[in-house]
Amino acid sequence: MSAFRFHHPIEVRYGDLDPQGHLNNANFLTYFEQARIQYLINLGLFEKGQSFMEVGIILAEAKVTFLAPVHFGADVKVGVRVSHLGGKSITTEYTLLDSASDRELATGSAALVAYDYRSRQTIPLPAEWRERIGEFEGHGGQ
Amino acid sequence: MSAFRFHHPIEVRYGDLDPQGHLNNANFLTYFEQARIQYLINLGLFEKGQSFMEVGIILAEAKVTFLAPVHFGADVKVGVRVSHLGGKSITTEYTLLDSASDRELATGSAALVAYDYRSRQTIPLPAEWRERIGEFEGHGGQ
Amino acid sequence: MSAFRFHHPIEVRYGDLDPQGHLNNANFLTYFEQARIQYLINLGLFEKGQSFMEVGIILAEAKVTFLAPVHFGADVKVGVRVSHLGGKSITTEYTLLDSASDRELATGSAALVAYDYRSRQTIPLPAEWRERIGEFEGHGGQ
Amino acid sequence: MSAFRFHHPIEVRYGDLDPQGHLNNANFLTYFEQARIQYLINLGLFEKGQSFMEVGIILAEAKVTFLAPVHFGADVKVGVRVSHLGGKSITTEYTLLDSASDRELATGSAALVAYDYRSRQTIPLPAEWRERIGEFEGHGGQ
Repeated sequence: MSAFRFHHPIEVRYGDLDPQGHLNNANFLTYFEQARIQYLINLGLFEKGQSFMEVGIILAEAKVTFLAPVHFGADVKVGVRVSHLGGKSITTEYTLLDSASDRELATGSAALVAYDYRSRQTIPLPAEWRERIGEFEGHGGQ
Repeated sequence: MSAFRFHHPIEVRYGDLDPQGHLNNANFLTYFEQARIQYLINLGLFEKGQSFMEVGIILAEAKVTFLAPVHFGADVKVGVRVSHLGGKSITTEYTLLDSASDRELATGSAALVAYDYRSRQTIPLPAEWRERIGEFEGHGGQ
Repeated sequence: MSAFRFHHPIEVRYGDLDPQGHLNNANFLTYFEQARIQYLINLGLFEKGQSFMEVGIILAEAKVTFLAPVHFGADVKVGVRVSHLGGKSITTEYTLLDSASDRELATGSAALVAYDYRSRQTIPLPAEWRERIGEFEGHGGQ
Repeated sequence: MSAFRFHHPIEVRYGDLDPQGHLNNANFLTYFEQARIQYLINLGLFEKGQSFMEVGIILAEAKVTFLAPVHFGADVKVGVRVSHLGGKSITTEYTLLDSASDRELATGSAALVAYDYRSRQTIPLPAEWRERIGEFEGHGGQ
């Protein structure tokens, strides 16, 4: 498995916290989502300003493992990688790290499926995605 | 496995939707969380007005499988059940259903760990929890 | 000024709360928004399932006055009324009430402007809106 | 009126957007709140890691004027200033700016009241707040 080659910093907002004083569990998925979109932008697979109806992927499954509470003022970043490129799907993995110490606060994964919003059908993963992700991750489109 | 013996209706809010026009993925965890708390209230394990610092459980893991998009105006409910009672932990399962058709829109699970917020340690699952949940679910505390 | 002729119940979610243990200030606008859309649906001016790009109004201003903290488990409802129909705009008013006691927890207002999302311009308020709102509110389209 | 002497950058998240494809109205208050807390931290009036039950202010009123839609990928920042220091209250003002062009996307204000969470009463604004804010804003505690 390759290491995480892409990280995106996230500011923990007061509005992300819950009555137990730390990051609410649902917002871990928000952080992963934000980092995932930045990963796609970074690879040229999505452009700022482009319609999100064009992004061409839907989420099939998401999972979070909570390792430590995340507090306001923590300086955190999310690592994203694609661990598997299938015929119609991508497996993405996430690590939420304290930026200062690199302590891992959470891990997660999400299965994405290529989708045509117009025909409302799953489609084969576009060749461009396969190439760019394979190249970036160094796993030859596997 | 027992059926879901508890369901909680949720109103899909405009504010829960994202630019693709349907329920944002993170909010499935919000819906599960809301139904989970109502499940605990229903079993007398948490009281409205009680401090959330007293609830005594933390989330160790959460997972969602997305089966169909959830739209504004959909009449939905979340089924909650406890599928396993461990020494220090509980496994909970969720089903998000269209209330009219009982079509399943998502499923999920969450692992909860008994926790003392004062000592900041995991603790054995309180006997009261074991009894009430076992009785409600009909699986004898297993 | 007419009384509030439309109320919409809202479930206070755990995910709506912040570290001070009560409803986060931003979510009052979420509650008002949800009640506003239900008001429009109730008057036949928006249909469930219709695209939100078709709703034809944009928000110009929003205001909240916080009268009391809103806690988890509170049974609340939002009253909505249109207090003014202008040439291109509508003034809406809100009251957040404890359903059991009718105690007022917050008030608010929002100025809405008729808008054509295709031409990206403000437009005169559609006659249908003027008629239905005037009739419902009993102020003759003023 | 002094200019805005404090600005805080905010990343527009995908999760902040709504079905109309731009920043949801409620999240403007979330952005203002985040910038307000950073303003207080910057003045030494709140510390990262401190309990939010200690912050000693509650919100009495909040207002937003929406000037332009805020899109994903926009590079924005929030200006915060205190325009009035009263006996028990503070008036804060906000400007949401496109960082690249300094185009104003929204303005807002919030009235804050000094509050003792233990006695649950409003209290006179602490002298330390009056001094530091007056000094920072250059309006001599007015």
